[in-house]
Amino acid sequence: MLTYSTEELLEFVEETVPTRDIYKDELPTPSLILDLDVFESNVRTMEGFLRAAGQGIRPHAKTHKCPQIAKYQVKTGASGVCVARIAEAEAMCRAGVPGVLISSPVIGKNAVSRLMRLAANYPELMVVVDHPVGLAMLSDAAEAAGIVVNVVIDLDVGLKRTGALPGKPALELAELIMKKPHLKFCGLQAFAGCTHVPGFENRRSTSLEMMGRAVDTRRLLEKSGIEVPMLSGGSTGTYNIDSELSGVTEQQVGSYVFMDVDYRAIGGKRGPVFNDFGPALWVISTVVSHTYKYQVTLDAGLKSFATDRPYVPEVRGIAGVRYAFGGDEHGRLYLEYPSQEIKLGDRLDLMVTHCDPNVNLFDRIFCLRGNRVETVWTIEARGRS
Amino acid sequence: MLTYSTEELLEFVEETVPTRDIYKDELPTPSLILDLDVFESNVRTMEGFLRAAGQGIRPHAKTHKCPQIAKYQVKTGASGVCVARIAEAEAMCRAGVPGVLISSPVIGKNAVSRLMRLAANYPELMVVVDHPVGLAMLSDAAEAAGIVVNVVIDLDVGLKRTGALPGKPALELAELIMKKPHLKFCGLQAFAGCTHVPGFENRRSTSLEMMGRAVDTRRLLEKSGIEVPMLSGGSTGTYNIDSELSGVTEQQVGSYVFMDVDYRAIGGKRGPVFNDFGPALWVISTVVSHTYKYQVTLDAGLKSFATDRPYVPEVRGIAGVRYAFGGDEHGRLYLEYPSQEIKLGDRLDLMVTHCDPNVNLFDRIFCLRGNRVETVWTIEARGRS
Repeated sequence: MLTYSTEELLEFVEETVPTRDIYKDELPTPSLILDLDVFESNVRTMEGFLRAAGQGIRPHAKTHKCPQIAKYQVKTGASGVCVARIAEAEAMCRAGVPGVLISSPVIGKNAVSRLMRLAANYPELMVVVDHPVGLAMLSDAAEAAGIVVNVVIDLDVGLKRTGALPGKPALELAELIMKKPHLKFCGLQAFAGCTHVPGFENRRSTSLEMMGRAVDTRRLLEKSGIEVPMLSGGSTGTYNIDSELSGVTEQQVGSYVFMDVDYRAIGGKRGPVFNDFGPALWVISTVVSHTYKYQVTLDAGLKSFATDRPYVPEVRGIAGVRYAFGGDEHGRLYLEYPSQEIKLGDRLDLMVTHCDPNVNLFDRIFCLRGNRVETVWTIEARGRS
Repeated sequence: MLTYSTEELLEFVEETVPTRDIYKDELPTPSLILDLDVFESNVRTMEGFLRAAGQGIRPHAKTHKCPQIAKYQVKTGASGVCVARIAEAEAMCRAGVPGVLISSPVIGKNAVSRLMRLAANYPELMVVVDHPVGLAMLSDAAEAAGIVVNVVIDLDVGLKRTGALPGKPALELAELIMKKPHLKFCGLQAFAGCTHVPGFENRRSTSLEMMGRAVDTRRLLEKSGIEVPMLSGGSTGTYNIDSELSGVTEQQVGSYVFMDVDYRAIGGKRGPVFNDFGPALWVISTVVSHTYKYQVTLDAGLKSFATDRPYVPEVRGIAGVRYAFGGDEHGRLYLEYPSQEIKLGDRLDLMVTHCDPNVNLFDRIFCLRGNRVETVWTIEARGRS
């Protein structure tokens, strides 16, 4: 009988010299696990591809919310990380991650005051702006704090979510920034939001058209005498599309580290499955009920998987079974033509549906080398979204 | 300018005598807030109704995962709380919440060994069983630990998720329990799972039929000489339906404390909106982008709201606007015929979509009395699902 609680287990594996190894089968379920070999391969593949394409990489940490992963990305070639929130920026900066770019406008007293304190301590920090009013908030606060804040103009290249319109509105915003002594203009950012468009050619034409507007805006600013050292864009689904655009200086790829059911379904350059990167993130689950012959119930439901897209988790290594959500804490697994026997107490790996929100449902990631727990990473910025 | 970080703010409000009051407008966004007046009224309404109906109340703590709320429920008449997971049970027991019932089978070495440690320290703890194999796991572990574990038979009255079949299979399981010296039979549990069936009369006929099977099984066991002191069932959507069944001894209501968009849509006894309980749980959000005239972007997206049902958050107090999810961290608000002007930096309250998984997305609940923060509750068992 296993004699460790989750807490004890964590303390145990975090010892420098553990008394004994801990294995996957001993972990509580449902738990989030990371296949380190696949994860490391994904990071190397992306970094190598973008380096060869002459682009930098500033991965999006909203995917993992985990300083250890951010540090690994930086160690292997990233110039920093993007974050979506001031709270994520706090977690990353305080953990010593360099080159943090807040990719969503920071608006409101609470967020702006925290931004100023952070920027005072981490002068590399960058934040996007997309509106003269937001720009004035930052400029006034930076002046009051006696600091200079690095700003990047967020462009709306068609997603209609955040961002100034490309072309003249962006140029006017840049000119406004140049007049503010407490703001430093660092460049442009654009998120096309077509990373999940199915079919490579569809995605390619959409992304090139949208990101083309950002490249054109960069040229417009430079023609107007404004230096634009950075155009940050891209995404996992378009990494080998936006790489064609020489005006894009770096990519904000996120999900490639983990992958998920959703991304695999968008299709790749060479086939119907987008498998340029391997699925590294799984939820382990236990069969907790078996009242019916052709159905078992798993202990991982919609509190363990993202449900924002029409996908369900996929079971690793077993064919002929189908998962269906069965409430907050349960999933039903229909044993249609199961390739192996499944019984009460069995443990299954389930591929996460949509990695970013999926990670946010857990507090930690158990990192496996084969079946051995090599380390445990805290999802430091979880719940700060 | 506000000079408190989230962490400082929390320390601040948790002081016994705060130096000054903290108000809603100072909180970070997105944050989860609880309207204490509505919450307390919901708790009183449910407790009063079930007491008058002659039933007990053991609210489901998977809804809130928060020991402070559990303690408030117990203080106002509940005999304990239900939980869905061993990890939730650990959080509740260690916080001093009595009468904890684990409502889902506990299967597997890790979970069973934790259950034994917990049961040794909290002899009131109860856990459901639904299968002879699971029963044997518990019996063997209890014998090895030298303790007696309180067990309740979970009945599958039609949901096909967990539970033994009603009637003879349940009787056989009860007889098996009676033979195990390290297990104590405490009664039956049934979750019909029809709490979200739209239309009161539809829901009524469905629930009475399904829960009737549990009542019949209780009678069968008693006729066979097995005392069944407890039949635990019910749900927020059927609280005033299952109250008609005198064989049901207590209800496991959960969502009534918070309410959500989803529950309001199921319809009540007296009208199309189920408003027996008030919406107490909201997410506060900030307008962070305003590039288009008839659209703004909010800083609360699908990492701030449950997305398992076809509902979107509803804006409090403003008519003529429509929220649409805009990714992990954003929502688009379409200003169709807005009843008031909405501008960059404005803060809006959004009704949660589905309260149980929604709570699980946050680390804490800011509890408001009017606009003043009265206390902050940690969602202790979040991420343990």
